[in-house]
Amino acid sequence: MNGHILFDILDLAGTFVFALSGATAARQRNLDLFGIVALAYIAACGGGIVRDLCIGAVPPAALSHWRYLAAATVAALITIVGYRSVKRLHHPVLLFDALGLGLFAVTGAHKALLFGRNSEVAILLGMITGVGGGMMRDVLLNRVSIVLQKEIYASAALLGALIEVAGEHLGWSFEWSSWGGLLTCFGLRYLSLRNHWNLPTFASTAANKGRPRDE
Amino acid sequence: MNGHILFDILDLAGTFVFALSGATAARQRNLDLFGIVALAYIAACGGGIVRDLCIGAVPPAALSHWRYLAAATVAALITIVGYRSVKRLHHPVLLFDALGLGLFAVTGAHKALLFGRNSEVAILLGMITGVGGGMMRDVLLNRVSIVLQKEIYASAALLGALIEVAGEHLGWSFEWSSWGGLLTCFGLRYLSLRNHWNLPTFASTAANKGRPRDE
Amino acid sequence: MNGHILFDILDLAGTFVFALSGATAARQRNLDLFGIVALAYIAACGGGIVRDLCIGAVPPAALSHWRYLAAATVAALITIVGYRSVKRLHHPVLLFDALGLGLFAVTGAHKALLFGRNSEVAILLGMITGVGGGMMRDVLLNRVSIVLQKEIYASAALLGALIEVAGEHLGWSFEWSSWGGLLTCFGLRYLSLRNHWNLPTFASTAANKGRPRDE
Repeated sequence: MNGHILFDILDLAGTFVFALSGATAARQRNLDLFGIVALAYIAACGGGIVRDLCIGAVPPAALSHWRYLAAATVAALITIVGYRSVKRLHHPVLLFDALGLGLFAVTGAHKALLFGRNSEVAILLGMITGVGGGMMRDVLLNRVSIVLQKEIYASAALLGALIEVAGEHLGWSFEWSSWGGLLTCFGLRYLSLRNHWNLPTFASTAANKGRPRDE
Repeated sequence: MNGHILFDILDLAGTFVFALSGATAARQRNLDLFGIVALAYIAACGGGIVRDLCIGAVPPAALSHWRYLAAATVAALITIVGYRSVKRLHHPVLLFDALGLGLFAVTGAHKALLFGRNSEVAILLGMITGVGGGMMRDVLLNRVSIVLQKEIYASAALLGALIEVAGEHLGWSFEWSSWGGLLTCFGLRYLSLRNHWNLPTFASTAANKGRPRDE
Repeated sequence: MNGHILFDILDLAGTFVFALSGATAARQRNLDLFGIVALAYIAACGGGIVRDLCIGAVPPAALSHWRYLAAATVAALITIVGYRSVKRLHHPVLLFDALGLGLFAVTGAHKALLFGRNSEVAILLGMITGVGGGMMRDVLLNRVSIVLQKEIYASAALLGALIEVAGEHLGWSFEWSSWGGLLTCFGLRYLSLRNHWNLPTFASTAANKGRPRDE
């Protein structure tokens, strides 16, 4: 069916651009060949695996379909061979990342609905599909995830998933609701990058100097 | 039913106090609005989500019932608006945290038994429900979890879950076994905080100066 | 049955040696008694729990059979009491670790096949069973996992799982395919340790000095 093919293409494109971000970060931290492929795969598929476990879709699609591993491996090899080019493409990569975020939020929410989950689950899991891989990437690289700190990222994914779910409830076609969610998420993310929009932080000046270890 | 309402109230109260601890830690580390809400939610619900995945209760309750996300969001907002008050309430927050630990250990073990799991699974998952969220909070904030280092924390949760499971096997009513487990866990945790009881550590003086990277 | 008993013995032996590595690392970082037992258990069983969640085998075997927790606890106690001896046995421990890696890769892949998963899932989950616990250990100890950085480790597990799955497809007996995969993984890991074989890394000299926080 038409909707299903679109769903697959969106999913694979998102996998590839997220894998680029994982591979780039892994290479910067001097991981070896396996580490780079592993980080590419985890950054691309980590969110989707959590989503599939939470909706009971076992084994997760990222494990049972070879195309996800293939896309991550290709992205890792491109990052290794063409690192200088990928780095020069910093700006395009941020664009692709924003696109991948929208793609994953929408396809993640859609899959949760397909499995008969309610709207709240679908919206949350859409967001997790979008940001989960990036958070795992940062945890494995031993740093506080930028997802939790900078610019409007997860909020854009949340909005994209919300529009997709609302669209399906209002009886829009999958094309309309998915493109609506995808483009809204992409647009919000792109504008926040361009204009340095950030969500507010609330640290008191003195309180956040050290690394507080107790709460 | 009576037992079920009590179960729900205990669960929600635990969620709220744990979310406070996540939001406070996130604010101290200067995360943005989304980061604070996310850490509140993960600290509160992370253990329960792992429990639900391990007993096959998909989608996890923390995703499918909006009240958990609502409780975490309210706790995050209270932390943001009333940070000075929350900080001054450091001592009460530790008390609430000890209460939440007991609540989660008991309700976690109870839910595993409800799903037909054996005693060992129920005891371990009770403990994981209690400490899992706090460990995820610390991993995301890029520090070694205090759960693994300080005072009697996980051990108190283990004891609480053990009493709950033993009580159900001995045919006590749910009220008796849950309050027995909850108060024992709370009491042990409170006394260990007050008297600085710690589990033994075993580091040789020379061995733990640096940060050994290889084993 | 014969194959099943062998499967159990392999699984338990792997658990024990992996728990030793977790307990040693935890003791070096000065964790308390609970922390050492927890790290031993997670290093030993973390990969298997992820495998069981991904193939839908709930509750995970590491939770529902007491022998895994017992093996991890014994390993932790041995590490605490006989730390000096365990440390002097650094070389044997690396050997046992290589053996455990092969054991877990083979038994993990075998279990995925038993649950009717396809070859790709079985190979990937075999590798994850082998390396997942070690990665969780390092994440909890707040460091970039050596699995992602040093020598041939995950690649050896991948090869072991591949041989096991290929063997079962070619109709070899379980003994042949499992010992083939196990010994190949062990041999490759042992040789790479002995000869300092590493997978290539690709960092440009200037790029990896600091700790880059953005990609």
